[in-house]
Amino acid sequence: MSIDKTKRKIGIIGGGQLGKMMILEAKKMDFYIIILDPTAHCPAHSIADEHLVADFDDEEAIRELAGKSDVITYEFEHIGVEVLQDLESEGYNIYPTPLALATIQNKYRQKELFKEHNLPVSDHMKVITEEDIKRAGDKFGYPVMLKSCTGGYDGKGNFLIRSKSEIKEGYQALGVGDNLLMAEEFIPFDREISVLGCRGVDGEVVTYPIGENQHQGSILIESKVPADISCQVKEEALKLGREVIELFSGVGIFCIEMFVTGDNRVLINEVAPRPHNSGHYSIEGTVTSQFANHVRAITGLPLGSTDLVKPSVMRNILGEEGSTGEAKVKGIEEALKLPNVKVHNYGKKITRPNRKMGHLTVTADTVEQASRTASEASKLIKIGGD
Amino acid sequence: MSIDKTKRKIGIIGGGQLGKMMILEAKKMDFYIIILDPTAHCPAHSIADEHLVADFDDEEAIRELAGKSDVITYEFEHIGVEVLQDLESEGYNIYPTPLALATIQNKYRQKELFKEHNLPVSDHMKVITEEDIKRAGDKFGYPVMLKSCTGGYDGKGNFLIRSKSEIKEGYQALGVGDNLLMAEEFIPFDREISVLGCRGVDGEVVTYPIGENQHQGSILIESKVPADISCQVKEEALKLGREVIELFSGVGIFCIEMFVTGDNRVLINEVAPRPHNSGHYSIEGTVTSQFANHVRAITGLPLGSTDLVKPSVMRNILGEEGSTGEAKVKGIEEALKLPNVKVHNYGKKITRPNRKMGHLTVTADTVEQASRTASEASKLIKIGGD
Repeated sequence: MSIDKTKRKIGIIGGGQLGKMMILEAKKMDFYIIILDPTAHCPAHSIADEHLVADFDDEEAIRELAGKSDVITYEFEHIGVEVLQDLESEGYNIYPTPLALATIQNKYRQKELFKEHNLPVSDHMKVITEEDIKRAGDKFGYPVMLKSCTGGYDGKGNFLIRSKSEIKEGYQALGVGDNLLMAEEFIPFDREISVLGCRGVDGEVVTYPIGENQHQGSILIESKVPADISCQVKEEALKLGREVIELFSGVGIFCIEMFVTGDNRVLINEVAPRPHNSGHYSIEGTVTSQFANHVRAITGLPLGSTDLVKPSVMRNILGEEGSTGEAKVKGIEEALKLPNVKVHNYGKKITRPNRKMGHLTVTADTVEQASRTASEASKLIKIGGD
Repeated sequence: MSIDKTKRKIGIIGGGQLGKMMILEAKKMDFYIIILDPTAHCPAHSIADEHLVADFDDEEAIRELAGKSDVITYEFEHIGVEVLQDLESEGYNIYPTPLALATIQNKYRQKELFKEHNLPVSDHMKVITEEDIKRAGDKFGYPVMLKSCTGGYDGKGNFLIRSKSEIKEGYQALGVGDNLLMAEEFIPFDREISVLGCRGVDGEVVTYPIGENQHQGSILIESKVPADISCQVKEEALKLGREVIELFSGVGIFCIEMFVTGDNRVLINEVAPRPHNSGHYSIEGTVTSQFANHVRAITGLPLGSTDLVKPSVMRNILGEEGSTGEAKVKGIEEALKLPNVKVHNYGKKITRPNRKMGHLTVTADTVEQASRTASEASKLIKIGGD
């Protein structure tokens, strides 16, 4: 009979909402959890066994975390990969692997890797000078998407250049070449979908029901599951998702965002080597949530069923526009009166406009019904500052 | 728009598995939690915001808990009710109410209350002397169930007297009249079922799908949901359950254990004013678990749907016979390989024979299938001492 893997201590770099939701699953099986996060009262603080209050680039603290943990994972990809690579070479278990993280951190390297392996991605090129952007415009046509290769999230680090005359503005907005830049062919897609998958240490891969994402100002607003796509698109997307996860020899949850065009082409957009906002629906909507399977994967336990329990819609609860300060939540009570609404309040002390403060999930017999209720509920909840 | 009830601080007397599972739900909405428990590393310790390490009868500590909390609840009914009554009269919110608790703590008083309200219970009488037991035997016939009126659980405090000749043994086993005793007509029931219900502060009552319980040596082994009962029995049981909850003007979860006889009579056996072992299936098996609804109820939030997601079977994981000491868990990995098995490891440091160390839940298309898998999984998991 096996050793008790639930005795493995899990170190998490980051104590935000993703860390918090991992811990809520891990604690069901009594895992011991250490987090590293610079914010004393971060969302995961009160449910972690230990909290190292330190910056994410504090190598000494990351080494301390490694010393206390049997396995290290992370809840966001903008961390220094060198120290993780060193630790891995010293024999520490780090999942997903630093090699996967290093590739994913750089969007250009990510796209090149996919291209090398004949995985469908939009046309793209490295950009150093304004002249390079002009060449990209000539090659791809306008609009052209200008992106920082590293560090971007929630639309930060992206600039859509609609015509030649906007090249200078875009170039300046993204740091005048101080950051690594790339230009991409603009894909006039019909839908953005998420393929969520998880790979165990033994190589077993499971994929989740595909979700369809709506953004507002580049921030995810809603994910509907199942996505309204044809069977053929679904099979193609799942196949691609699985190929990406195998390509990285990943361990844990990966989210692969894809575009579906009007003529039903599926293109890989970006990969996140961690539980993803578009997979939050899985807590209520599937048999085993993305957080539960991530914990199982990185600790070497077998993966759980990803079957959809009911059609599900997740909506983010964002900090109100024009309001910054100590977070005040209103309307949760009214929202909970609506059928099958579940509210997740991350407990962030400070709100800012469009900061992800929480989310809600609605399950229903149809995705349309869930979406109507979710939309109604999210209008009721307001998080503003003092 | 309403005030933010998720800012209410919840005090829980008891930091065992029930407290732990309450907290795992409460933390999704970011409630602040203080527990009172004498065991430093009790199951709820690592996920509570504060832990008052104190005995359950430590009035000063209970007062300290009240001072820190906006609402107090408890995870077991064997606590001194006087201090709770005092605190309530001083204006503290205590749910379920001390009055309900006082009645429920005394099994005789509980049964008398039901009789007064024409709710069906087995025949019973107060017992002080051996002579009284003889009278009960003459009146009810043998076997007769002798019970301590207070303090019993998991079969402790019960003695089945099969004939007149066993009266002395039973009387001695239960303390020779030092404890309050009662004698009950023995009900040769076909099934034992649990009606779980929850009442909000506004009087709203929801009931859960009825579960069917199997005991071994008076300890709950398995709960299957839905119970294999006729529609008529189901309606009768739900009606009775609702009447009991309204009778106590309860706030929070109540579990009403009932007997179903061969001729389909339904009798109320016992009530627990708290989340109950037979309701653990609701974490995976219903839209809103008993723990989530308990938290919603006591904080004044609207209750959630209790719809069954899938047929579900819960099995307890008990400490191995003949083994006491630091708990060693084996076989979780093997159990998780079986379809839809979820393991809850309470994290108790010390195991004893038949101690409730964890449970597992299986959902499936039929209750028979779930039961087969649950039985197989529970044979794989062993918790023994050093």
